[in-house]
Amino acid sequence: MSRAWNFSAGPAALPEAVLKRAQAEMLDWNGSGASVMELSHRGKAFMQLAATAEERLRRLLGVPVGYKVLFLQGGATQHFAQIPMNLAADGDSADYIVTGHWGEKAVREAAPYINARVAGTSEAAHYLDLPPRERWTLDPAASYVHYTPNETIHGVEFHDVPDVGDVPLVADMSSNILSEPVDVAKFGLIYAGAQKNIGPSGLVVMIIRDDLLARKGRPMAKIFRYAEHAANDSMLNTPNTWGWYLAGLTFEWLETQGGLAAMGERNARKAKTLYDAFENSGGFYRSPVAVNARSRMNVPFTLHDSALDAAFLAESEAAGLLALKGHKAVGGMRASLYNAVPQEAVDVLVNFMRDFATKHG
Amino acid sequence: MSRAWNFSAGPAALPEAVLKRAQAEMLDWNGSGASVMELSHRGKAFMQLAATAEERLRRLLGVPVGYKVLFLQGGATQHFAQIPMNLAADGDSADYIVTGHWGEKAVREAAPYINARVAGTSEAAHYLDLPPRERWTLDPAASYVHYTPNETIHGVEFHDVPDVGDVPLVADMSSNILSEPVDVAKFGLIYAGAQKNIGPSGLVVMIIRDDLLARKGRPMAKIFRYAEHAANDSMLNTPNTWGWYLAGLTFEWLETQGGLAAMGERNARKAKTLYDAFENSGGFYRSPVAVNARSRMNVPFTLHDSALDAAFLAESEAAGLLALKGHKAVGGMRASLYNAVPQEAVDVLVNFMRDFATKHG
Repeated sequence: MSRAWNFSAGPAALPEAVLKRAQAEMLDWNGSGASVMELSHRGKAFMQLAATAEERLRRLLGVPVGYKVLFLQGGATQHFAQIPMNLAADGDSADYIVTGHWGEKAVREAAPYINARVAGTSEAAHYLDLPPRERWTLDPAASYVHYTPNETIHGVEFHDVPDVGDVPLVADMSSNILSEPVDVAKFGLIYAGAQKNIGPSGLVVMIIRDDLLARKGRPMAKIFRYAEHAANDSMLNTPNTWGWYLAGLTFEWLETQGGLAAMGERNARKAKTLYDAFENSGGFYRSPVAVNARSRMNVPFTLHDSALDAAFLAESEAAGLLALKGHKAVGGMRASLYNAVPQEAVDVLVNFMRDFATKHG
Repeated sequence: MSRAWNFSAGPAALPEAVLKRAQAEMLDWNGSGASVMELSHRGKAFMQLAATAEERLRRLLGVPVGYKVLFLQGGATQHFAQIPMNLAADGDSADYIVTGHWGEKAVREAAPYINARVAGTSEAAHYLDLPPRERWTLDPAASYVHYTPNETIHGVEFHDVPDVGDVPLVADMSSNILSEPVDVAKFGLIYAGAQKNIGPSGLVVMIIRDDLLARKGRPMAKIFRYAEHAANDSMLNTPNTWGWYLAGLTFEWLETQGGLAAMGERNARKAKTLYDAFENSGGFYRSPVAVNARSRMNVPFTLHDSALDAAFLAESEAAGLLALKGHKAVGGMRASLYNAVPQEAVDVLVNFMRDFATKHG
């Protein structure tokens, strides 16, 4: 078939221009006579690629001096464990704001290493809202505060950066990094699995403030220490070279699209198109998420009659609309609207939804 | 340029047929309307791909029942640390046979977790030979014995599997897995970074005996526990889907090539071609490695006059022969002859070497 409209939550749609470039260069990258996957990460050509990708990311996000950018492996889940290993020592505690599945998992993976305190949670609201700030119980002595600016499964997003005082703020931005401008200076550490807004799975991008790299953490192997990765320009061991390459192509594509301000506008418009379609459906479709907490990236929704779910999924797939099934933890549908999903895809989806509602209404 | 002859030690040459297939499927894999990189790892299509890749690997290696096959992230280096975390508890010790750089690194990364005993080493021979078996000081109470069947940098390879009694044998096969038949039943755990004989970097393939999965190890996050990865079919978190896909294509290619018996014959012939060229060079080229310890996969060699090294590298590269520079720890040259490097590449190399020797002799 031709290219489908892909609403996958991750691994997710990549920019078609990036895929075409990777396709064209597959057997001979940069005149090397080899695929980029076949080259040593320590060769001049790949080192240049790696440095250029980092520069583009720094430019896109406006990363201030005093931060290192790392290209790591393992997925965000591994870093749920590795962050406390690096930023805290035995007996230390850190605060976690939990607004969905991924925040819960971050707590669970940190717990073997530190006192992972839940300082705010919307569990009682079934993670369909954000916990009110006045109920957060932040500890000024915490090693850091961890939160999830966008929850991929529950479709809940912070629309500002919480003020946590002098405690370093750590953010799992896996599903909304690069989707709009962000003030990096407000964070101690930002990390993101690549497979939503950056590239293929198997890569983690991390932005970490120098003072956090200097923390002692606990005794552990060198390979787990962020300071060692930083000192070795993320080449302490063989990095995921294909992921790094595709990330660089995506960063380049974002620059040609006008950078994060332009992406922010587009993403806001895409999300509005879809949320408006719910409002205008006469109750046929609805978002379960509180209005002020709605995600621009991951949009769960339900049909007024769940008996229609199977037909919705079958008909949407037949219409070339992929991966609209909601996560089993939430049910219903979910459309993920990452950077690589164009407005046209959302327009096609909304038209399909209107036709489906007419047919089955 | 057209495709070069690629002797990179890793990331290394991939079969051209695999690259062409990946290129053709880049924008539309399996009729899905999306790249394989853009699909959920939990979707039916990718799950099938993953299972088929595992089946092919099991068939190629003849993996007996009672072993799990895992597709993990992090590179072999991370598993230098993760293996002791999983297979041993505080106060336990494990034996390490060290025959080069990677064995040293395995000890260093294990040391924060266990008593990593060096039970045999060829350090005194500058890792240009194997340590005589009669000098190994194996401890029957060790949690496991770790060794490196092929040392990528020093070019030293075991040509049989050492008998270590009832203690589980753990092998870092990163640079010689799938290069010839192997009796998996002799091992407790085999692991390999993919970027030599399997696929791109960013993937680790592990074959682990069930009883080792049942070991308690130390308290740690779920993401580090092999038993959890096994229980979740290596989808405890998002795997490196592109790496898994390419690994599957490589396994399929190996089957069409006649499997590991055929590869073993080809690899032996390729290595003989190159070692014979040293012998027949009248001393112009030589291997620093003891005859019985010479690797079939990674062949370091020196020129009789190191003042010619720069010219050798410049002229070989101009002739389309890539990545012949030796590792800085050893110096000189190195040709890596993994599965994807055809006999023709070695023939071209040997002809180049003869011409170079004539010109500069």
